[in-house]
Amino acid sequence: MSAPVAIGTRTKRLDAPQKLNGQERFTADLKLPGLLHARVVGSAYAHAMVKGVIKDAALAIPGVVAVLTAADLPIAPKADGTPGENPLVEDEAVFSGQPIALVLATSDAAAEDGVGAVEVDYDPLPALMRMSEAMAEGAPMVRLKTSEVSDEEASMHNADAAQDSGEERETLPPNVSNSIHFSRGDVAAGFAASDAVVELSFTSQEVHQGYLETQVAMATVEPLGDLRVYTSTQAAFYCRTRVAETVGVPLHRVDVVPMPVGGGFGGKFVLIEPLVAAAAVAVGRPVLLQFNRMEDFLAANPAPGCEITLKVGATKDGTITALESRMTFESGALGGSPLQIAAILMGGYYRFPNLEIRGYEVLTNRSKMGAYRAPGAQQGTLAIESVIDELARELGMDPMAFRLQNCVVEGDARPNGNAWPRIGLRQTLEALEAHPAWQGREEARAKGRGVGIAVGGWPGGVEPATAVCRLDADGKMTVVLGSVDLNGTNTTFSQIAAETFGLGAEDITVKTASTDSAPYAGGTGGSKVTYTVGPAVQKAAEDARQQILSIAAEHLEAAAEDLEIIDGAIRVKGVPGVSVSLREIASMSMTVGSRFEPVYGKGSSAITESAPGFAVHLAEVEVDELTGETKVVRYVAAQDVGYAINPASVEGQIHGGVAQGIGWALYEGMHYDDSGQLLTATLMDYALPKAEYVPPIETILVHVPSEHGPYGAKGVGEPPSIPGAAAVANAIRDLTGLRMTDIPIRPERLAAALDAAETARTASAAD
Amino acid sequence: MSAPVAIGTRTKRLDAPQKLNGQERFTADLKLPGLLHARVVGSAYAHAMVKGVIKDAALAIPGVVAVLTAADLPIAPKADGTPGENPLVEDEAVFSGQPIALVLATSDAAAEDGVGAVEVDYDPLPALMRMSEAMAEGAPMVRLKTSEVSDEEASMHNADAAQDSGEERETLPPNVSNSIHFSRGDVAAGFAASDAVVELSFTSQEVHQGYLETQVAMATVEPLGDLRVYTSTQAAFYCRTRVAETVGVPLHRVDVVPMPVGGGFGGKFVLIEPLVAAAAVAVGRPVLLQFNRMEDFLAANPAPGCEITLKVGATKDGTITALESRMTFESGALGGSPLQIAAILMGGYYRFPNLEIRGYEVLTNRSKMGAYRAPGAQQGTLAIESVIDELARELGMDPMAFRLQNCVVEGDARPNGNAWPRIGLRQTLEALEAHPAWQGREEARAKGRGVGIAVGGWPGGVEPATAVCRLDADGKMTVVLGSVDLNGTNTTFSQIAAETFGLGAEDITVKTASTDSAPYAGGTGGSKVTYTVGPAVQKAAEDARQQILSIAAEHLEAAAEDLEIIDGAIRVKGVPGVSVSLREIASMSMTVGSRFEPVYGKGSSAITESAPGFAVHLAEVEVDELTGETKVVRYVAAQDVGYAINPASVEGQIHGGVAQGIGWALYEGMHYDDSGQLLTATLMDYALPKAEYVPPIETILVHVPSEHGPYGAKGVGEPPSIPGAAAVANAIRDLTGLRMTDIPIRPERLAAALDAAETARTASAAD
Repeated sequence: MSAPVAIGTRTKRLDAPQKLNGQERFTADLKLPGLLHARVVGSAYAHAMVKGVIKDAALAIPGVVAVLTAADLPIAPKADGTPGENPLVEDEAVFSGQPIALVLATSDAAAEDGVGAVEVDYDPLPALMRMSEAMAEGAPMVRLKTSEVSDEEASMHNADAAQDSGEERETLPPNVSNSIHFSRGDVAAGFAASDAVVELSFTSQEVHQGYLETQVAMATVEPLGDLRVYTSTQAAFYCRTRVAETVGVPLHRVDVVPMPVGGGFGGKFVLIEPLVAAAAVAVGRPVLLQFNRMEDFLAANPAPGCEITLKVGATKDGTITALESRMTFESGALGGSPLQIAAILMGGYYRFPNLEIRGYEVLTNRSKMGAYRAPGAQQGTLAIESVIDELARELGMDPMAFRLQNCVVEGDARPNGNAWPRIGLRQTLEALEAHPAWQGREEARAKGRGVGIAVGGWPGGVEPATAVCRLDADGKMTVVLGSVDLNGTNTTFSQIAAETFGLGAEDITVKTASTDSAPYAGGTGGSKVTYTVGPAVQKAAEDARQQILSIAAEHLEAAAEDLEIIDGAIRVKGVPGVSVSLREIASMSMTVGSRFEPVYGKGSSAITESAPGFAVHLAEVEVDELTGETKVVRYVAAQDVGYAINPASVEGQIHGGVAQGIGWALYEGMHYDDSGQLLTATLMDYALPKAEYVPPIETILVHVPSEHGPYGAKGVGEPPSIPGAAAVANAIRDLTGLRMTDIPIRPERLAAALDAAETARTASAAD
Repeated sequence: MSAPVAIGTRTKRLDAPQKLNGQERFTADLKLPGLLHARVVGSAYAHAMVKGVIKDAALAIPGVVAVLTAADLPIAPKADGTPGENPLVEDEAVFSGQPIALVLATSDAAAEDGVGAVEVDYDPLPALMRMSEAMAEGAPMVRLKTSEVSDEEASMHNADAAQDSGEERETLPPNVSNSIHFSRGDVAAGFAASDAVVELSFTSQEVHQGYLETQVAMATVEPLGDLRVYTSTQAAFYCRTRVAETVGVPLHRVDVVPMPVGGGFGGKFVLIEPLVAAAAVAVGRPVLLQFNRMEDFLAANPAPGCEITLKVGATKDGTITALESRMTFESGALGGSPLQIAAILMGGYYRFPNLEIRGYEVLTNRSKMGAYRAPGAQQGTLAIESVIDELARELGMDPMAFRLQNCVVEGDARPNGNAWPRIGLRQTLEALEAHPAWQGREEARAKGRGVGIAVGGWPGGVEPATAVCRLDADGKMTVVLGSVDLNGTNTTFSQIAAETFGLGAEDITVKTASTDSAPYAGGTGGSKVTYTVGPAVQKAAEDARQQILSIAAEHLEAAAEDLEIIDGAIRVKGVPGVSVSLREIASMSMTVGSRFEPVYGKGSSAITESAPGFAVHLAEVEVDELTGETKVVRYVAAQDVGYAINPASVEGQIHGGVAQGIGWALYEGMHYDDSGQLLTATLMDYALPKAEYVPPIETILVHVPSEHGPYGAKGVGEPPSIPGAAAVANAIRDLTGLRMTDIPIRPERLAAALDAAETARTASAAD
């Protein structure tokens, strides 16, 4: 390949201007005549039978047009004839805030007043909020009426999830909606052969995706009943299918217009769109629903809480012998959790000759659990990376050396038996090892700081995709896609296409079309857009290039292989002055009587081998021993990105992921009381990391090229959000000697632990 | 080919329901918050200098937001740096009704009031309304400030127009904007050798396209200044280019959304869109302009009036020897007319060994002249088909036999020297000859009716096009196009795609995308959509089919050539029970981890050989000798359509064309007084043929397959609108003996001619 002209350079995001100057038009900015604003009447109880909804007072409020309950929505039966899933409570509310009714009004204020005036007649039922209670023998049911639990969404985020563990299902405790079991070798023998064993128990609370823009969608009923859904979604085509199924119209009568997304992080695959569409059909008018912040905390789809007990043994030469674990993951009241991928990653970063993992997904009266950027990985990684760190200490080994000795490489097996393909974990560890922050860790410690490292890996998703590259009348190119640009991928694609034509990225327009006309691409998630749509763009651009060269060859009476594209013109190599511009090619193929076909390149990809990405993070912390407050003062993130097409964008992804990891480590957690009321339903109560809590982040890009990604690129979105909690916990351990196993490590928790340690130390000294 | 399943069958139009029940959403039905309604202040004079526009009174009207004049519009300079064309009068108004200012208001009523309150200060100039005056020596200029005249639009409608006649330009009379000259052989010698010569002079008035929906467009300014234009256009991509050039933004920042068209007939390529877009940019709000009927009569782009003197000679054995003609065509005040194609057709239906045609496009102070379904053909055909009819009578020959003896076949030359490709004129004449209406013409005459026939031909347009055929998640197919569906072509394309998959047309969705994402197709005009986009659809469907078979082959472990698609499933031929459904193929190619690429077929066409279509019409008329009213009582339309993919749609096209032809013959004509005021500016004054004036129409479809069209289809839109005037005139001649040469043949004209003939007969009898 000749020297790249567009790829590999720090390129400003195409959508930066409108994002920065406030001119971006998000879904909630859309205004339509006749638009009705919707607000939800959420369940006051975490578990209750709903005996009636009294609408009269609400309907009397000026501006309130309708109060819709489940019975008012046109919900189609499923393909098998059974009733379809109603997005409103039919009779049993199973979590606090669950939508029972939808108030539609000509203004948002009127709708809000309407919500206050709707009376719901409840028959409260006991709420089960803790997994241990829910699984206890004889426990009541989280849902009196059960329905099937779907793993469809979890499978969108990683390639492993689609595979069953292949084990027979044991007899399950109450309210367990799913279980997993991975087993390899002889765990008892493994531990027997070990010289050191560490066993710890971890908990993680629910963590919200924390997007700036809450869940929002608008649906319009077009003439003849066709639906158009404008939505802040990561997955337009999936949303289209779900809306069509819900209201019972053929797919081609639903057009999903993917709008700019003000943050998704896995939480916006599909949530409120079927409700909004059904409401629009019910009243025949445009309906806009945007959750306010509290509704979003109550009724969106955060990352689940979990409890993990993990035991790992090793011999004194630093060889790991066995892993054993029991995991329980919240699956909310509606079922579904990323337990499986959590287990596969937890048991997948290192070589475990003997392994036994049992896991349970447990229903409780909480909201739906959803995907959070690298779903399941944060929780599983906290456990394994804490235990490995502790085990290294037990063995008296350097934690970096211990990891390097045991880390997986190509061919090593994951818990489900699948071998890792070519990965860059070792190289990423080595890159961090060489960094001054690691080399200088003793100096840091001398300054009263603790230094911790942790690994995070993500298998990476794969899904077929198609892209189009079209020559326009002005000689510029348009790339047409079906994938949503969540984080700069369209800019990356403009670079890929520009590279093919020797143009600047600014000469390429990238359009995400609506589902009516877009080429297929899956949801933007699973770190797979650049990896899978990128090759489709590259092939589409190459296809367009070949069409252009073929036209130019005929026009210039030269062989196509003797031509080159430079500065927007096709030239005969070595023959100055003989050229034809892209604009002329456009004219020769898109005007009356032209003899050449329009230039319309198409490319598709169907990569089945994923390109796992690994990050290794280093956190340096200070702890206020009085208050227990932890401050992250330095952060280094090394990551194998395969190849950075837009280094600025890749680094931006890492920065965001690190900030989120610090949130997991120290701040974020959704907290319910025993009756099921959410105590952290505002941003005053739910602590997102502020800018001042995030230190400057140093990044190290490691380049172990993938086989199938464009120019060797791998997905980079998920890995940087994974190791944060473990790295910070390990740094706190390094500094304080305390092994904190419950995240977030809020000041009160750490202060209590410091107090207890001090008490124990004093008591021990007094002995 | 196996027996067709979808093509060749009478298929209901996909858009029939919404068109019939009133639910179609046209451009003027779009409502947007902040929308401003626009109305034009048209020039009160056919020619005047505009010295000033006083806005104050208009701006004082509640609801009026702005009064824009030329200086207020953001008009970009042309590529060569010269000032761009301003859609509002800058200083010289050159026709009555020409837009001088645009009043924008929050309601249409306020805008209309605003128009009444705008004061324009004029300095009137002499208006030239007749071509003879305009061409007279020493005539003043129609425009004091001339600018170049473009033939760009005319070239969209037919393949011949793009070619210059190749003759040197003579010194032209005043106000002649263009001239043509076609010459072959020795005309003087040809006439000398003839036994009979007929020379007649014809006139035709301006004829309006008469669409139900007047010119309408809405433009919105998107964040960052991008423009979206919703418009009733026949040519989305061309409109995009014109709008971008006018306001000076890159192409990719203009998205043209082609809306359902309530009638185009050539008059909606681009007209008001640049004005509406510039106005939206000027005020930063959405602007909707829909001409009312009077504005549309005053300032749209009707078919031009013309004067043709035509002389043809033949020997007594029925061999034509020579043609000589002088043609003058109105080109309005802005220039441009279909003179060239009129000449080529007039001299192209028959073999003329000697030929001389001179033609002039003449500026007068009339509105822009535009394309009318088969532009130029009606006028040229009236002349040649009247003269041929008269010449047959002179020779004592049957007019059908005379035509069959001289009609062109493949290889015969047109006036410009281009040879006709394979055509079906002879076969179409023969088909009509065999029809009972022709065979029984003596019986008709015995009932007091006249019978006339006439030929009409159209060269057919060509332009490259691309189409997409996509498999959706539900196993149905979507065809994505850039061509506007003016008359059922999308239904035809659904049949073409359905045929490829062995599905019903209802299993295919056809979407016309906006220019942001659509594959390229040219304007819907020139009878070229089915002919050129059709093959692209066919190839795209075939491409998709091959992709489907390839996936199925791998899945079923069979050879692709052993597979067949039946009832939405791919089966192994002769192996019952081994199959995979289209829905399963969709799932195997569009879900996480799938190993197959999405099915996304692409097809393009770049046909350079047109497929001319010929119609031969028979009209049977009765005439009220007292009032001069002509009534068409029977009508037979034979047409070579190549192959009728949707016979219902083809016949619908013929029905509409015949009705228009009757309009040209008997009713329609735009009439100006000498000062340039239009006297027929309402539908009370301008007579469109009502349903009661159109008899039942018998159609004969002739099938002379084209080489390149889908399944042999030819364009069918234009030919049926061509022969009507001549056929009716010939029928009147047959009945009354009067040769009417000025259309429309309104009752007063025919009554006067009947009176004159009666007077002459009486006088002659009295001698």
